[in-house]
Amino acid sequence: MWNDTYLKTVLQPDYEYACEHLLPHLFDALTAHALMLGGCGVAHADEAASLLRDLRRTPFPAYDPRVEDVFFTLDRLLASRNEEAAGALRTALSRNDLDMTIYRLSARLRLMRAMERVLRLRKTLLNFAQRETDTVIVAYTHHQPAQPTTLAHYLTAVENVLSRDTRRMLSALAHLNLSPMGAVALGGTSFPIDRSRTAELLAFDRPIENTYDAVSASDWQVELASVITVTSTTLSRVVHDLLFWASRGLLSLEDGLVQGSSVMPQKRNPVALEHARTKFSKAIGVTQSVILSSHNVPFGDINDPGPDMQPPLTSMWDDFREGLELLIASLNNPTINREKWLREAQQGESVVTELADAIARHTGCGFRDAHAHVKALLTSLHEQGRTLSATTTADLHALGLALPEEDVRSALNPAEFIARRTTYGGPAPAVMTGEIASAWERLAADQQQHTELTARFMRSREALEGGAS
Amino acid sequence: MWNDTYLKTVLQPDYEYACEHLLPHLFDALTAHALMLGGCGVAHADEAASLLRDLRRTPFPAYDPRVEDVFFTLDRLLASRNEEAAGALRTALSRNDLDMTIYRLSARLRLMRAMERVLRLRKTLLNFAQRETDTVIVAYTHHQPAQPTTLAHYLTAVENVLSRDTRRMLSALAHLNLSPMGAVALGGTSFPIDRSRTAELLAFDRPIENTYDAVSASDWQVELASVITVTSTTLSRVVHDLLFWASRGLLSLEDGLVQGSSVMPQKRNPVALEHARTKFSKAIGVTQSVILSSHNVPFGDINDPGPDMQPPLTSMWDDFREGLELLIASLNNPTINREKWLREAQQGESVVTELADAIARHTGCGFRDAHAHVKALLTSLHEQGRTLSATTTADLHALGLALPEEDVRSALNPAEFIARRTTYGGPAPAVMTGEIASAWERLAADQQQHTELTARFMRSREALEGGAS
Amino acid sequence: MWNDTYLKTVLQPDYEYACEHLLPHLFDALTAHALMLGGCGVAHADEAASLLRDLRRTPFPAYDPRVEDVFFTLDRLLASRNEEAAGALRTALSRNDLDMTIYRLSARLRLMRAMERVLRLRKTLLNFAQRETDTVIVAYTHHQPAQPTTLAHYLTAVENVLSRDTRRMLSALAHLNLSPMGAVALGGTSFPIDRSRTAELLAFDRPIENTYDAVSASDWQVELASVITVTSTTLSRVVHDLLFWASRGLLSLEDGLVQGSSVMPQKRNPVALEHARTKFSKAIGVTQSVILSSHNVPFGDINDPGPDMQPPLTSMWDDFREGLELLIASLNNPTINREKWLREAQQGESVVTELADAIARHTGCGFRDAHAHVKALLTSLHEQGRTLSATTTADLHALGLALPEEDVRSALNPAEFIARRTTYGGPAPAVMTGEIASAWERLAADQQQHTELTARFMRSREALEGGAS
Amino acid sequence: MWNDTYLKTVLQPDYEYACEHLLPHLFDALTAHALMLGGCGVAHADEAASLLRDLRRTPFPAYDPRVEDVFFTLDRLLASRNEEAAGALRTALSRNDLDMTIYRLSARLRLMRAMERVLRLRKTLLNFAQRETDTVIVAYTHHQPAQPTTLAHYLTAVENVLSRDTRRMLSALAHLNLSPMGAVALGGTSFPIDRSRTAELLAFDRPIENTYDAVSASDWQVELASVITVTSTTLSRVVHDLLFWASRGLLSLEDGLVQGSSVMPQKRNPVALEHARTKFSKAIGVTQSVILSSHNVPFGDINDPGPDMQPPLTSMWDDFREGLELLIASLNNPTINREKWLREAQQGESVVTELADAIARHTGCGFRDAHAHVKALLTSLHEQGRTLSATTTADLHALGLALPEEDVRSALNPAEFIARRTTYGGPAPAVMTGEIASAWERLAADQQQHTELTARFMRSREALEGGAS
Repeated sequence: MWNDTYLKTVLQPDYEYACEHLLPHLFDALTAHALMLGGCGVAHADEAASLLRDLRRTPFPAYDPRVEDVFFTLDRLLASRNEEAAGALRTALSRNDLDMTIYRLSARLRLMRAMERVLRLRKTLLNFAQRETDTVIVAYTHHQPAQPTTLAHYLTAVENVLSRDTRRMLSALAHLNLSPMGAVALGGTSFPIDRSRTAELLAFDRPIENTYDAVSASDWQVELASVITVTSTTLSRVVHDLLFWASRGLLSLEDGLVQGSSVMPQKRNPVALEHARTKFSKAIGVTQSVILSSHNVPFGDINDPGPDMQPPLTSMWDDFREGLELLIASLNNPTINREKWLREAQQGESVVTELADAIARHTGCGFRDAHAHVKALLTSLHEQGRTLSATTTADLHALGLALPEEDVRSALNPAEFIARRTTYGGPAPAVMTGEIASAWERLAADQQQHTELTARFMRSREALEGGAS
Repeated sequence: MWNDTYLKTVLQPDYEYACEHLLPHLFDALTAHALMLGGCGVAHADEAASLLRDLRRTPFPAYDPRVEDVFFTLDRLLASRNEEAAGALRTALSRNDLDMTIYRLSARLRLMRAMERVLRLRKTLLNFAQRETDTVIVAYTHHQPAQPTTLAHYLTAVENVLSRDTRRMLSALAHLNLSPMGAVALGGTSFPIDRSRTAELLAFDRPIENTYDAVSASDWQVELASVITVTSTTLSRVVHDLLFWASRGLLSLEDGLVQGSSVMPQKRNPVALEHARTKFSKAIGVTQSVILSSHNVPFGDINDPGPDMQPPLTSMWDDFREGLELLIASLNNPTINREKWLREAQQGESVVTELADAIARHTGCGFRDAHAHVKALLTSLHEQGRTLSATTTADLHALGLALPEEDVRSALNPAEFIARRTTYGGPAPAVMTGEIASAWERLAADQQQHTELTARFMRSREALEGGAS
Repeated sequence: MWNDTYLKTVLQPDYEYACEHLLPHLFDALTAHALMLGGCGVAHADEAASLLRDLRRTPFPAYDPRVEDVFFTLDRLLASRNEEAAGALRTALSRNDLDMTIYRLSARLRLMRAMERVLRLRKTLLNFAQRETDTVIVAYTHHQPAQPTTLAHYLTAVENVLSRDTRRMLSALAHLNLSPMGAVALGGTSFPIDRSRTAELLAFDRPIENTYDAVSASDWQVELASVITVTSTTLSRVVHDLLFWASRGLLSLEDGLVQGSSVMPQKRNPVALEHARTKFSKAIGVTQSVILSSHNVPFGDINDPGPDMQPPLTSMWDDFREGLELLIASLNNPTINREKWLREAQQGESVVTELADAIARHTGCGFRDAHAHVKALLTSLHEQGRTLSATTTADLHALGLALPEEDVRSALNPAEFIARRTTYGGPAPAVMTGEIASAWERLAADQQQHTELTARFMRSREALEGGAS
Repeated sequence: MWNDTYLKTVLQPDYEYACEHLLPHLFDALTAHALMLGGCGVAHADEAASLLRDLRRTPFPAYDPRVEDVFFTLDRLLASRNEEAAGALRTALSRNDLDMTIYRLSARLRLMRAMERVLRLRKTLLNFAQRETDTVIVAYTHHQPAQPTTLAHYLTAVENVLSRDTRRMLSALAHLNLSPMGAVALGGTSFPIDRSRTAELLAFDRPIENTYDAVSASDWQVELASVITVTSTTLSRVVHDLLFWASRGLLSLEDGLVQGSSVMPQKRNPVALEHARTKFSKAIGVTQSVILSSHNVPFGDINDPGPDMQPPLTSMWDDFREGLELLIASLNNPTINREKWLREAQQGESVVTELADAIARHTGCGFRDAHAHVKALLTSLHEQGRTLSATTTADLHALGLALPEEDVRSALNPAEFIARRTTYGGPAPAVMTGEIASAWERLAADQQQHTELTARFMRSREALEGGAS
């Protein structure tokens, strides 16, 4: 009866996707609906709830091309056991509101899991930072050595961005955790139902008010795509830096994250980071599928933001989660070549800003002039083939600047450069320690919120499953 | 001295872009910095603040290829008037933190303006909805007539999505309205400065804690791109429906929004809506430039999330704003062909769900069976070449169903179909009136918040400009 | 030994992907390499070729976490049977050139299949067009009725675009059908090998000259993504029109392509077209994953354009192929409501251009004035509440225009409007017949080329498999 | 009369865009149309051609809100001088076919210019490569040193990709250089016109056959976006490598392409390359605007692929061209630190593949075993804290391998490693010289084709302008 192409490209894959990803949410939504109907006095609805609790414990039927989808498969199963219960369940119910509910429940679960990984990466970063508050690195800007700072300063910066991403995820959750149930096809129903009750049973915050909005809107899915895009672009930048450090022998991954070559015996490739990079690229890329499926289509169309958008969302969640896991594994216990990094700071010119600061402080000439003096000093050193670390008070005298020897030495010492940067949010270890402590507090609060939400969603699931039975 | 290509493709366009879009923010940021330095006891800093207040009142110099950018142009201007003030201003200041501050101030302004348009569109939608609570339309799903509802129901659904978008914009504002000032190149400074004071003067909520984060992160810009994408995809769907209605003569734009043809004398093309569609497409499209400029680049790089990202962001804001304005103009006072819409509802089969509901209610057979009965009825009517509106109690008798004549008539009356849908969030005019009232309240609260924020940002600007002077 | 996360997110999925999609290509490439080495006199290489022919006939081992990938699994299998043959095979071979070869062979197969679907759709369109050269439709521009034309004219236009897309696919094939073999890691080898011979055995057009290019470039994959994007955007526009026609009852899909509703008994949703729309949206969307994986990564990196890009490419091919199949099925035998379409043409004003043409021809007044006259006529008719079809010679007289009655009638007859449009490429049935004949010829030539290419690739496969053996 | 919003967001910007970018193409298209009409015997058409030749020499009127667009502005101008000529010109002409013609002419020009930059970059690369056939570099894969090769090998690889891109551009040209003229609104005309003649006058290859296709299709614009995307992703990878080399002091840009810091006096930032990177990112990003404007819109809609798509296309061309120019400037004459690169090759382990090759050759053990032996050697050296360059025959003896001293030394010498790689397409200078010569030949042929096309398009322009007049 179905066109063979339609069956093979739509109906069967949709059925299989639903079986793999959506059944528990389908049972949850229908059970909540049945319980609500029972509470509103619809005859046989409670029987439907009981039957659903039984059926979710038995294997779901394999695909049968004579039945349209999982909904009608379940409808038939119910009817074969209790026709009146099956009939009652269909009251004030459409696949439109049901499907949107299922997709929201599924997205809620995926978002909670993604958030868990983000929290885990934040924890990994803070643990790592804590060990590296004294590790001097040379921060690059414009692909050139800029200033010494600490590895902890860099890692905490990344954690701070991710703490904003956690807020974004919680915001997205607030927009998705709303109940479409009771919107039926789009216009509600002439039966007296209790949409708030269904929402409560499913641990949604409340029903989506307008029933047309409830079945049609895709904003919450595009928002999820957006949130993943925001975090993934940040992490693509971090992976860039980690690979740059790996290229220069400053950071090495542990053996289990490294692959060799079939040709080049010397190779220890930091492949975990490379794959993390493409995971994030792919997560960002596939969000375009989500956006395009919502673009220039009718507001009332259900397939576009509905079943057809779920597989790309699943790819997105998987790639994002895997990228995070690879990054967590990579940052869990890498080897840092602290000596090499310190040497780069000592032998290069990245400390020279502090010399200008020192000149400004000592001579009162203003930073503008100090900057010019130091530039002249560097030109002179380069012409003489000397390095910055070899600067003497004589070199400064030659520029008309009198600075005590110990101030010159101190200005050119990377560790002192850093220790002096006690600006709020700066890298001085004394400051960093406080920053890291605050970061731990924020993280603990976010973890607490995540745990409470998870518990609330689990309780709903357990109640709908019907306990020991 | 500059390579000619570099000058023409980077330096000069950047200068001109800054002159057109960024100067007031540059003056604000520098003045706040000078005032903060003055408060911290840096000599001559107050003079710098005064000078900046003077200079912002005079025309900014045209591009001079010998000077790198607007920053150094201003630096020279200041130095030519008061070298010590110019020197003082450079204390604890880098183009890195300064630029990021300017881009945030600029984005704040653009976001506030975009939000104002969204609020205006919500108002337009609610005004429109209020006039159309009794206007019967046929809602389509899957490109086919589905059920009668009201135009108000549809319009309010859209407004409700936009009210969530307003929350998203306010969330994004919270992430952008933070101060990078004092991060200097990335590691803060060895001068004692007061980052909170600068933040306060610029009406930022607080400083961004980690100074590396402050100059490097681009998450807030990708978030802005995301927020625009979310709203634009929703509105692309709405425009689809409006154009579909226009195609069928159900909605006509006013004359000033319509164009004719150079060949076809009969044409009245609803071009305002078409251009709105491409404005939203382009707004979504250009966000990819923002994302790609943040993708796989070093975390510490300043050009990618900095100057180079500003022109695509400007295109995005412009296209988005213009799309909104075209939509507001189109929905302000379109002509609705209410009779044609009602006729479609009366003559088609979209009311038939209610007949199934009525059968279920009357016979207690459950909606599942009722649905099957109505399907059989339709098949029989089609075979006889009759329309649904011609259904008699005899037709129902033939299917073994006894329904009073008046119930059949009532079920097939679109207005009664709607009036019966009193579900929370449903289209029944009685319910809609309450929904619209709630929507007005939410809108008023959002408008209030927008007004207060605008006032706060204006006060900062005025204070930094230094009043009458 | 492998980190558990790395194993689960990279190694195992890659192995399973390779087993599902790449093994025949792996055997082909290695067999060709072995045969080439044998020809160059490398001892035991011919034995390797024989062994590979045996092994491809036996089931490939399931994933074993102790072995890195399919390459080393096969390497071990070979060594366990004949260590010297296994050793010989590794001569002048890297996973770099091997993998790139496999991905090209795989893409070649997918492209040929996609092209086959495009050819099939072109055939479906021309068959359809052939039946509808006299079917009057009203072409819309700007969502408003524009001019009468024929369904054949529209369908042939679409076929013509697709014939350009076929050229694009053949161009892409020319860029992908080149051999990386012999590039080894990237720098070739110090062994004397014959890259042309390997290329020939694999039915590649020739080796990619520069060996660094051979293993690094991803341009051919981004080009594939681009070609799919070009065709998919065109087809998204066609689907828009088909759904618009379906909405208005002008086109109905056959039963097997239509789904009903669980709530609304009257529904016959043209879901096959809706799903085709999202298939194309998703095909376009996922190409961003391909682009992003090639964006801002080193030219020499193999993972990004290599294994990590294959799953999104597979999604792209699948979505594109399925979209085409759904469209072919939908256009194979839809029901066209010819009367309704003709009525729209007769009763509306879309014929009015021809009236202006006729006035210009008869009065010699120039089209500019004729257009103005007709506009005045329409205004006058609208004011009188009359339709265009009711126009009389008197109406024209009133505008100072003398036109014979029969010319007025003829100008207002849609069929004559069309018949008169004998411009090269126009809709007049006499012209269309010739156009369709040319289109069939182009299609036949493209099909011929596709068949020959397929045969050539099959012959290579068969020769590498080693015949009856 | 126009709605103010519509005027400000659509009509006026479109007018200004047309004045800045499209007028010469408008005059070309109209003049060709007039000449064709004259040739077909349309009275006064030749006068229109003359008038157009006059008018294009006078300044075009500034925007007047009472006139819709540039077309009607010109129509009025013509009519004010010669009403009959203006009337004649409107014969068989619509803004639909006219606009599409103008956009194609404009795209043709932009594409020719982009191609010229690509040719210039290829020339720059080959010149550079020619100087560096003996410059040893360490090629990295997976962000780790892989093998020594030459800078010429890398640069030629990039040139080779760009030569494929040149073919892609010429393919795209073949699809765009077709004439829509004579398609009128979409259905041609009832006037006898000569579409081939207009095409010929405009130096199009031929008319687009189907007139519906002519005004509706956007495939050629999406193809342009695709071609730019393909090249830009490749170049983004090249820029990555150049910046990596700049970071490590291996490559320095000349002074005019480098910027300093307002804070860090030591900075010499290779900003030209950074801006090239974002130019390419933005070029790729904005192509999404082109794709989205063609997505899910009616095939017959003219605004989406028409005027609204032009500004993003212009941004795309500009960003792409500027990216190329920055890259050409950067690669024109950078400083290469050849000693540092050679040192890296000599002191690292990237030569070790050749040692395995040598072992395989000498001992006949097969590369598989040789690879294992070298791996053991490296482990042993690392344990002893020795470097690969210190390897002696004794070390090999310890592994049971007898290799003459000179063969060991030779295997570990990067220059000999490279000289031995004489594989077709390999880096051996002897081979590279031939490769570079072939590349120069291909480039010369492409340049020749570009020059001829340019001349042909120029001749058309000059003929339409009407010579000295």
